[in-house]
Amino acid sequence: MNKLYVVGIGPGAYEQMTIRAVNALQESDVIIGYTVYVDLVKEHFKGKEFMTTPMKKEVERCKIALEEAQKGKVVSMICSGDAGVYGMAGLILELKEAYEDVSVSIIPGVTAASAGAAVLGAPLIHDFAVISLSDLLTPWEKIERRLLAAAKADFAVCLYNPSSRKRHDYLEKACELMLNYKEEQTVCGIVSNIGREGEEMKIMTLKELKETKVDMFTTVFIGNSMTKEVSGSMVTPRGYRFDKETD
Amino acid sequence: MNKLYVVGIGPGAYEQMTIRAVNALQESDVIIGYTVYVDLVKEHFKGKEFMTTPMKKEVERCKIALEEAQKGKVVSMICSGDAGVYGMAGLILELKEAYEDVSVSIIPGVTAASAGAAVLGAPLIHDFAVISLSDLLTPWEKIERRLLAAAKADFAVCLYNPSSRKRHDYLEKACELMLNYKEEQTVCGIVSNIGREGEEMKIMTLKELKETKVDMFTTVFIGNSMTKEVSGSMVTPRGYRFDKETD
Repeated sequence: MNKLYVVGIGPGAYEQMTIRAVNALQESDVIIGYTVYVDLVKEHFKGKEFMTTPMKKEVERCKIALEEAQKGKVVSMICSGDAGVYGMAGLILELKEAYEDVSVSIIPGVTAASAGAAVLGAPLIHDFAVISLSDLLTPWEKIERRLLAAAKADFAVCLYNPSSRKRHDYLEKACELMLNYKEEQTVCGIVSNIGREGEEMKIMTLKELKETKVDMFTTVFIGNSMTKEVSGSMVTPRGYRFDKETD
Repeated sequence: MNKLYVVGIGPGAYEQMTIRAVNALQESDVIIGYTVYVDLVKEHFKGKEFMTTPMKKEVERCKIALEEAQKGKVVSMICSGDAGVYGMAGLILELKEAYEDVSVSIIPGVTAASAGAAVLGAPLIHDFAVISLSDLLTPWEKIERRLLAAAKADFAVCLYNPSSRKRHDYLEKACELMLNYKEEQTVCGIVSNIGREGEEMKIMTLKELKETKVDMFTTVFIGNSMTKEVSGSMVTPRGYRFDKETD
């Protein structure tokens, strides 16, 4: 067998998992993940062996998953959102080379960009860029370059990891940079605890976003030049036809 | 009730729907969508009323959905992938203003960027841009600007609508533009019929991609400068730490 599934479980609630993800977990002997996510799924998969490792121990966690699969167990490594967006899919595929007998399947899930957008309305209907503000593994200059490029080319932008204890002013810095090309009145939105208890959303301008403190469970959306607020929802139009028609 | 769900059904196969999406469709009296997507779900939701409209009739389709909900039926408007990524969520929210009694819920799904990435490996593990090559509603100059900006800032890029009968050379043009900033050897991948019969993937260089013809059921992935091929998978590393460590 030696099967390892890398499973995106979606934003949190069991209902946001795909049927394919549920099937993979049901088929598994062992479910491995970051403590918080294992706790989210535990009650729905009784009788499984659960293994957890704390945050920032990703390489270790992936190796444990591969070793358990090597032993002949069916293993699911779970990630929040999509396993392929800031998730473990890449690391597993890189490390897998040392575990010849293990076959890996990546099972995609609903990432925070999609899940958060649905709470706010439809901010990512058109071209968008996804950028993480975490500089743990990426030089800040590279992040800065991407923020500026996305703003200049009028992308809607979704920010992951907008804040942490050490990086409390990164969102402010990111907004400051984007204000070089985006208007102060650009429609923005934040969503925290997407699909979990305590889910909250707020729509505001880019100027207001710059002055807003968010935590690490928040996903941030910055509109493009056409994004608007429609009856309490953040909506980016599908295209620019109406624009062109009135030119 | 007057409930309208806008539901992302994922890339195609029933198993790629979320439980929440399945529940919404089960609760619905009417399921509305583009013919191809209605055909994909039909057999799993027996006894429902199905309504289809052809492609490019999106405004009409949304109005029908809102009118059916207005009548008191529970309605699901289905979109492939995620309802919020080039989907109907935005248009429904814009048109809804004229239908006061209808309450709209957006149910996110697995978009082609996530689903296609999982087939190829893990090309979107780090910051990425999603760009549609369709110039039906967007001026080509704007698309061009986004392609250049994304390439220059070293984003991994996912292209939707890379081709159509009228736009057979757009992917070539897009690659040509990105070659201004990305190396010819940049690792790229294409996936067609994601999660459906006839699913196919191929990994190639950006130079080869430029010379490749794809159809409208194909999603295209262009790596960043760190993306590599690992045992037949397209993998973008999570960050640049290893890079920095060897500097």
